[in-house]
Amino acid sequence: MGHNTHSRPLDLRSVAVTDGFWRERQETVRREVIPYQWEALNDRVEGAAPSWCMHNFRAAARLMEAQRREGAAFQAPSYSYRGFQRAPEDPARPDPDRFYGYVFQDSDFAKWIEAAAYSLSQHPDPELERTADEAIDLVCAAQHESGYLDTYYIINGMDRAFTNLRDHHELYCMGHLIEAAVAYWQATGKDKLLRAACRFADCAAAQFGPGPDQRRGYPGHEIAEMALARLYEATGEEKYLDLCRFFLDQRGTKPYYFDEEARLRDELDGRPHKPDADPNRYAYHQAHLPVREQDEAVGHAVRAGYLYSGMADAARLTGDEGLRAACERLWESVAREKLYITGGVGGTVHGEAFSYPFDLPNDTAYSETCAAIALVFFARRMLQLDPKAEYADVMELALYNTVLAGMALDGRSFFYVNPLEAVPAACHTDKRLEHVDPVRQKWFGCACCPPNIARLVGSVAAYAYTESGDTLWTHLYMGSELTKRVGDAVLHLTMESAFPWEGRAKMTVRADAPVECTLAFRLPGWCAEPSVSYPEGVRRTDREGYCCLTGTWREGDVVALDFPMTVRLRMADRRVREDAGKAAFTRGPITYCLEEADNGPDLHQLLADPRRLGEASVVPVEIGGQTMQALEVPGLREVPGDGPLYADYAPAEVRPVELRLIPYFAWANRGEGEMRVWLRVR
Amino acid sequence: MGHNTHSRPLDLRSVAVTDGFWRERQETVRREVIPYQWEALNDRVEGAAPSWCMHNFRAAARLMEAQRREGAAFQAPSYSYRGFQRAPEDPARPDPDRFYGYVFQDSDFAKWIEAAAYSLSQHPDPELERTADEAIDLVCAAQHESGYLDTYYIINGMDRAFTNLRDHHELYCMGHLIEAAVAYWQATGKDKLLRAACRFADCAAAQFGPGPDQRRGYPGHEIAEMALARLYEATGEEKYLDLCRFFLDQRGTKPYYFDEEARLRDELDGRPHKPDADPNRYAYHQAHLPVREQDEAVGHAVRAGYLYSGMADAARLTGDEGLRAACERLWESVAREKLYITGGVGGTVHGEAFSYPFDLPNDTAYSETCAAIALVFFARRMLQLDPKAEYADVMELALYNTVLAGMALDGRSFFYVNPLEAVPAACHTDKRLEHVDPVRQKWFGCACCPPNIARLVGSVAAYAYTESGDTLWTHLYMGSELTKRVGDAVLHLTMESAFPWEGRAKMTVRADAPVECTLAFRLPGWCAEPSVSYPEGVRRTDREGYCCLTGTWREGDVVALDFPMTVRLRMADRRVREDAGKAAFTRGPITYCLEEADNGPDLHQLLADPRRLGEASVVPVEIGGQTMQALEVPGLREVPGDGPLYADYAPAEVRPVELRLIPYFAWANRGEGEMRVWLRVR
Repeated sequence: MGHNTHSRPLDLRSVAVTDGFWRERQETVRREVIPYQWEALNDRVEGAAPSWCMHNFRAAARLMEAQRREGAAFQAPSYSYRGFQRAPEDPARPDPDRFYGYVFQDSDFAKWIEAAAYSLSQHPDPELERTADEAIDLVCAAQHESGYLDTYYIINGMDRAFTNLRDHHELYCMGHLIEAAVAYWQATGKDKLLRAACRFADCAAAQFGPGPDQRRGYPGHEIAEMALARLYEATGEEKYLDLCRFFLDQRGTKPYYFDEEARLRDELDGRPHKPDADPNRYAYHQAHLPVREQDEAVGHAVRAGYLYSGMADAARLTGDEGLRAACERLWESVAREKLYITGGVGGTVHGEAFSYPFDLPNDTAYSETCAAIALVFFARRMLQLDPKAEYADVMELALYNTVLAGMALDGRSFFYVNPLEAVPAACHTDKRLEHVDPVRQKWFGCACCPPNIARLVGSVAAYAYTESGDTLWTHLYMGSELTKRVGDAVLHLTMESAFPWEGRAKMTVRADAPVECTLAFRLPGWCAEPSVSYPEGVRRTDREGYCCLTGTWREGDVVALDFPMTVRLRMADRRVREDAGKAAFTRGPITYCLEEADNGPDLHQLLADPRRLGEASVVPVEIGGQTMQALEVPGLREVPGDGPLYADYAPAEVRPVELRLIPYFAWANRGEGEMRVWLRVR
Repeated sequence: MGHNTHSRPLDLRSVAVTDGFWRERQETVRREVIPYQWEALNDRVEGAAPSWCMHNFRAAARLMEAQRREGAAFQAPSYSYRGFQRAPEDPARPDPDRFYGYVFQDSDFAKWIEAAAYSLSQHPDPELERTADEAIDLVCAAQHESGYLDTYYIINGMDRAFTNLRDHHELYCMGHLIEAAVAYWQATGKDKLLRAACRFADCAAAQFGPGPDQRRGYPGHEIAEMALARLYEATGEEKYLDLCRFFLDQRGTKPYYFDEEARLRDELDGRPHKPDADPNRYAYHQAHLPVREQDEAVGHAVRAGYLYSGMADAARLTGDEGLRAACERLWESVAREKLYITGGVGGTVHGEAFSYPFDLPNDTAYSETCAAIALVFFARRMLQLDPKAEYADVMELALYNTVLAGMALDGRSFFYVNPLEAVPAACHTDKRLEHVDPVRQKWFGCACCPPNIARLVGSVAAYAYTESGDTLWTHLYMGSELTKRVGDAVLHLTMESAFPWEGRAKMTVRADAPVECTLAFRLPGWCAEPSVSYPEGVRRTDREGYCCLTGTWREGDVVALDFPMTVRLRMADRRVREDAGKAAFTRGPITYCLEEADNGPDLHQLLADPRRLGEASVVPVEIGGQTMQALEVPGLREVPGDGPLYADYAPAEVRPVELRLIPYFAWANRGEGEMRVWLRVR
């Protein structure tokens, strides 16, 4: 196959999202989420757990300023994390020189800058840009002279920097910083943060590598791998790709680095070393095996998705076939055995992790919003490596369902956990469901999901399209205006789309002169009879679920795509115990659910009737001020008896009901109530 | 209704169990369980967590001996529980003067003595009796001069005795000691332990009560209530009934005693007091409301069952109608909303507790063996209060299914937790199932279940029959020889029974002279067409599921009972989400299950076919050396496809299979494999 299938996302400045559906969400992010998050990073949100993120940067900047002022006379603080407080005793009076919050709190800044960058690339906003610039000034002021930039160790003592890669998230913070810096540079052309990120990466590259004085470590929470690949692509500096590969190559080799560093820490502390006996301690970090030998998606689902994304990047950038084969196996493991019908992943709260194959519980699901986002990242990178519609199908499923479900329609509250079945009374009383909220929360102490949604929604166009020299790949359908360069020629393309509610899309060409190239369109896997019309003279070849149209494109050429969206009743592989005898409704990319608001309580007493699927109708409905398509389909409701707890079996007495289903992403926007994706089948 | 319906269990010395089914289990207890447990109490079982039970009694006895020797010069140890170790650093070299193990470890001795007592009453065994006598000598030597007898405080310092009723189980240990002492006295006529138990109860009665210098406490783990009622019935001493009532009356009143004592402890320690903010802290102990106001069975299921048993005893002994009404409401709550079809209770591992109404998960079930035993205790006491077959139906269900499942057929390993669905691979990898073992364990650090099974199996005759002056109530059917006195007359009765495999039973009368009395027989709720034949001239009245035969009984009179056992397919109330669309097989008192050994793996792919229930056949099978009745019934197995994880719904391709079901109590006796009680229905 080789390099000819490789592609990369479009520069966000060359594509404008005009789509009603996505524009609305980007505006919500711009108007609600980004300003709110800035307040949260500065601990100004009443009732929300303080982030301490900007506080910590201020404390570190103050310290670095002292260092610059005092020079050789400067007395650095010594390592004191044992005395570290997550929150000050009096939250209104934090010690201005102390670190508070989670060790990974710096990343909140980076995610926010990244989201702001994407927003700025779509919608200029001088005030936002000024706020971002000032924040960047502060963060750069906090950078250690070595290039190191993690406030936890800058404040608590640099003597212990990089001594706990497993738990202390420095390389994770570095990864997010790189992502943010590249995005901000691409959006604004300003490189101050990019230079700081490069210096941090250089600092890490000096520490970690195969050299005699270097350490053999790798991140406990992955993301640096994909970030370094991105930094390499942005700067052209091979050293960043080298560090990315080093991290990937080291991971899972023996002796385990995390054990080595633990031993060293104990040595430093003069403590007897007690090896960690938990046999799953490596799998949690995907460090149980060298990455090229991994076959099954395991451990913390967000970390896994980030790692696999980095692996796919490296496979594409280096042509490493072993890495590519591992990516394909891991993709299969996720898509074939560990994926919810909502595009969510990570079946268990324990370790926020993938469960064993086909274990996809609905009520106790973890299905973290960030894990679905990580899956979108992985999918797009698999598409960049080798465009196959199956990757885009999963990317679309995760994006339109679990990712969007993570945010309320008004952008003001968020889900961390995305169950496929919720009974509020159970969530409130049952400790087994302690992690499941039936209503979205304003903010989280560990606030990864809200900014992650913001940065993905803001950059959604980078998932819709990728390009290689002479090919533009359309993976997702959304209204947009884009520019595609082929050599010196320029093609202006206008995409109109009725997605996700109707399967029609139309791409119109504007070009000063004819341009020879390929426009490739994904044929969605959910559509049985896709139809594509295109200008005469253009050659169509279908490849891995893509309709590739090659020819000379001229002003006014039109590609019209029609992917009829039928209401489908879906079932799970029979090895999925939790879905045995059940079915779920989907239409196009949207997975539907029942809510109590429409169907009354005791949703488990509702049955789908496959024989009447043909009578399903699609009806517009307004939820949270947004119009969307609901489904109405004849079904049945069991009539509960009032006999004893156990009785002789008799077929349930049922009465016909009209089931009303709404898009899963829109659930829990009308107060607290039951929700259910999988219905029993009559 | 009044006192005329009250009854009490038969003296175990007046009834001999001759039944094949039960005799076999009593012999297993006598030959395997009692000797094994004695070794366990003395920390001589290889590979099992040491109990430290007898070690602690030896340490306390040594200390009390020093006290007696030194008199006024004796220096008592001061309170040191903060330095308390659950196990010695070198387990082979415990400090002979130190307390080890759980705070409630003394109760292991009591449960063992009680089991030994029942065994001795059925089967004389001089060696066992000598061992028991020696153990009793040691325990009595450990008793404090005040009568107090809990080694934890005797060893660690009496100054803190009775300062932590909520967690420290002293009154729980007292309760078990009383139960044991009464049983041993009734079995052997020896009263040494009974006198010690009375002294302990007297000591507690001095501490707790309504008097100005007394404390208002009550047990954190109930059992003292029912034990004191039993002590009152054994000795006739009103003071024990008074203490029982005091404990019941105080429970759940405000201010909460457990809070008061926590405040006092902090005061004693000079520590600032921080009130416990957990809103469920009272419900766990059934102390959230005064007992007469409780409507719903909540909290730790064993504690609840013991409390309700004590309430039923007190209601019967005092004629307290408020208490009786509360017992009836709590019974309804259990039987109507919180009972597994295996007779188990306690749906959640969190707090080993009752879950909310109709929450009866199968795979994550807790359903502790001891909770089913506690339910048997409660049921018998409700029968004593008012004989209704519904109580006996539940008692029988719990006894034949969950209680017996708690012990391997060979008596050598035990279940603490009794799931209704087990997939070993899931149990091994899924932390949500951490509490579920797919194979029985030899022993537990917290070893309540094995000795509890032993004492219930040993005294099963006390659950089969109760008597009032002129009535003998037969609640359970088992082969036995018994003696019933009516005034000065004596009736010798021989019960023959084919239970639990066939619903036939026959009672034959031997009497030197005619005896006027009522023989009452339970008509099992599971039998649609019971038939009873009896001598001419005897009068039959049916009452609450009992066939009461009143007349003059003569030598050779026979009552023949026939309760045809059909194979039944049962369903749960439709509010039970976990059983929606499912059914379970039962026959007579036995609940059946599928095992992988008979049906292959992936049991969730098997379907019951109600239309072919009539083709079910009952076939003898040997498991663990015991012959029992299995079921064979036509069913279906879904044929798993090998398509994608999600596909358009299509009715499952099925192939006919012969389902083979075995009694639930016999599962996990043929190695590790899947098990399932509830099958999906075609």
